[in-house]
Amino acid sequence: MMIEGIQITPLKILKNPSGDVMRGIRSDENQFEGFGEVYFSKILSDKIKGWKYHKEMTMNLIVISGEVKFVVFDDRKNSNTKSQFDEYILSCNKYSRLTIPPKVWIAFKGLSLGESIIMNFSNILHDDQEVVTKEINELSYNWKTL
Amino acid sequence: MMIEGIQITPLKILKNPSGDVMRGIRSDENQFEGFGEVYFSKILSDKIKGWKYHKEMTMNLIVISGEVKFVVFDDRKNSNTKSQFDEYILSCNKYSRLTIPPKVWIAFKGLSLGESIIMNFSNILHDDQEVVTKEINELSYNWKTL
Repeated sequence: MMIEGIQITPLKILKNPSGDVMRGIRSDENQFEGFGEVYFSKILSDKIKGWKYHKEMTMNLIVISGEVKFVVFDDRKNSNTKSQFDEYILSCNKYSRLTIPPKVWIAFKGLSLGESIIMNFSNILHDDQEVVTKEINELSYNWKTL
Repeated sequence: MMIEGIQITPLKILKNPSGDVMRGIRSDENQFEGFGEVYFSKILSDKIKGWKYHKEMTMNLIVISGEVKFVVFDDRKNSNTKSQFDEYILSCNKYSRLTIPPKVWIAFKGLSLGESIIMNFSNILHDDQEVVTKEINELSYNWKTL
């Protein structure tokens, strides 16, 4: 069951012999919740970043290069998916945008050989006070399985 | 002489053993002129895309992967740099944001082996009515030189 509030939006790739054009996000889409900041996070093969929990930030994540597994844990009191994990694999082959609402835990792992690149389009500016972190082993997800 | 209205903003890369984090654009920066759309344009080695001229769009361009040469031609009547070409090479090694105001001509060429990836963060939604195009040989820039 998909974690409450998470959205996956397939995105168009416009083929071009000189190099494709890949959609990202538009201001008239439902997943646009305002603009704070865009940044890029690289993730090396088999490396994991997380866990992070944002109190306010909605993330719109797109994998621009490589392949990445995102794992989400729902710890929200009144959620229908409380105490559940879910996972989403994104790449240019499954080219989609993953929208993560605030107040869920997220971590991600690089699945490609070499480096994968993720764009985060967030609705607020980065703010240390707004982020909570846990060590990767503090939530009992089995990262060994694909 | 740099074409009037064009800005190059060096961007921070935050080193991380699992994969670096690369700044993109923030809503509190001078080069932010509102948000319309983010998309990605790939460019293959030695291929050229252009010329394009936007009547209204301000582009904020970042090369996320590979290396790209951007060439700009200024055809604006009242510009101090009228009738001039200029070129800007961006990559993750010279990690910067290139801000292109409306009403200048732009084309770009992939310099890396393989594919380069450019993000365009634009202040308006894509609109065919707002773009003018020319064939690459309609402006006399010598693409043979690096």
